[in-house]
Amino acid sequence: MTRASVFGVGLGPGCQDLMSVRADRLIRGATHIAYFRKKGKKGHARSIVEGLLAEGVTELAMEYPVTTEIPFDDPRYNQLLASFYEECVAQLMETVEAGASVVVLCEGDPFFYGSFMHLYTRLLSRVPVEVVPGITGMSAAWTATGTPITWGDDVLTVAMATLPEAQLCERIQQTDALVVMKIGRHLGKLRRALKSAGREDDAWLIEYAAMENQRVVPLLDAGEKVPYFSIVLIHGNGRRP
Amino acid sequence: MTRASVFGVGLGPGCQDLMSVRADRLIRGATHIAYFRKKGKKGHARSIVEGLLAEGVTELAMEYPVTTEIPFDDPRYNQLLASFYEECVAQLMETVEAGASVVVLCEGDPFFYGSFMHLYTRLLSRVPVEVVPGITGMSAAWTATGTPITWGDDVLTVAMATLPEAQLCERIQQTDALVVMKIGRHLGKLRRALKSAGREDDAWLIEYAAMENQRVVPLLDAGEKVPYFSIVLIHGNGRRP
Repeated sequence: MTRASVFGVGLGPGCQDLMSVRADRLIRGATHIAYFRKKGKKGHARSIVEGLLAEGVTELAMEYPVTTEIPFDDPRYNQLLASFYEECVAQLMETVEAGASVVVLCEGDPFFYGSFMHLYTRLLSRVPVEVVPGITGMSAAWTATGTPITWGDDVLTVAMATLPEAQLCERIQQTDALVVMKIGRHLGKLRRALKSAGREDDAWLIEYAAMENQRVVPLLDAGEKVPYFSIVLIHGNGRRP
Repeated sequence: MTRASVFGVGLGPGCQDLMSVRADRLIRGATHIAYFRKKGKKGHARSIVEGLLAEGVTELAMEYPVTTEIPFDDPRYNQLLASFYEECVAQLMETVEAGASVVVLCEGDPFFYGSFMHLYTRLLSRVPVEVVPGITGMSAAWTATGTPITWGDDVLTVAMATLPEAQLCERIQQTDALVVMKIGRHLGKLRRALKSAGREDDAWLIEYAAMENQRVVPLLDAGEKVPYFSIVLIHGNGRRP
């Protein structure tokens, strides 16, 4: 850390020793860390690094003004989040301009559907930013199933359960291997899409992949509610000698 | 390592400090390692761990009997590889049955288009096997471009350039974000597919992501040959506040 920078550091799926050696070193050496969290919570990213931080580290908890209370397509959602991100960026820049680097803790891989990207694009032209990739939650999920996700020429599709049902169904029909994230209250829709695509029997639900309470279950045997850290997947079945 | 096991350990994209802390610990502590390589080469997986191994470690180099000399669809290819994998498995089992664990070095993430999967399925019913996920080469590739790969509801498609041109084109048209691997001699076909899909201008070529000789270039400016460690990608452009 020769020049004060913002480091967007991928923490991986949520288990300390699945962090990269580089992430581990940056986090242990940090004088300033920042992380997103839901209001009133400790924050999942912060929990992952418990016990690794140096004494006296300065913490910036960036608390979402809203998570699921307002729908994505409500213009107020975008306004609220945009000004929230601007505020976070101002706080990070203040630290960097005072000469200290900040490590932003990012669950999974920062550039793969991560929240840090919203800070990154705003910081980019103003201060030095470095990104450290991480093991994705989906890698932990397919590893947890004990079955490889893709073979040979398999096509892998990663889709969010927030998509409309017809689009989801089409994606599921067209692909060999499938990963679905952001499931939450979209579970019923995802189930219908899988059923219409004729692939409900092949789907697995992985909750809390690589974490202490990891659970792998055929989607057909899962209940009506899934936790935030849930991934549904279908394994590819491609060419192999 | 209480019970002798085979560990399929993801090395990540090819830079030592992007290995997970768990992988690093297993590799440094290993008494026996194994890795694939092309005949007459040192082996890329082996190169990644240079300097980390304990003194006196026993090495098993598993040398492919064939790589690109025979096409995939030639029945001899499958026969040759199947007996090669059986032979590797027999050697690994010999070590485990003698009471020692073996760490198999796997580039990237073992369950994501990895060669280890061919050993894994054959070992599974016979000896304890554990898999450690890794940062994928594609994560390193999109991190190298300095631009996030997926936002909001973006669909990500991962496809191999070995697919027929028409299928490639269709996949490219249908997706938001794209990752193409196994490019090699399929570069011309991939270019035509991108062009037919109207997305040639958006494609980036990343060579040796996260390695010393990393190179990021718009695909339009790339030459007619790409190295084995090449990934083509198109960034998603989804919803963001």
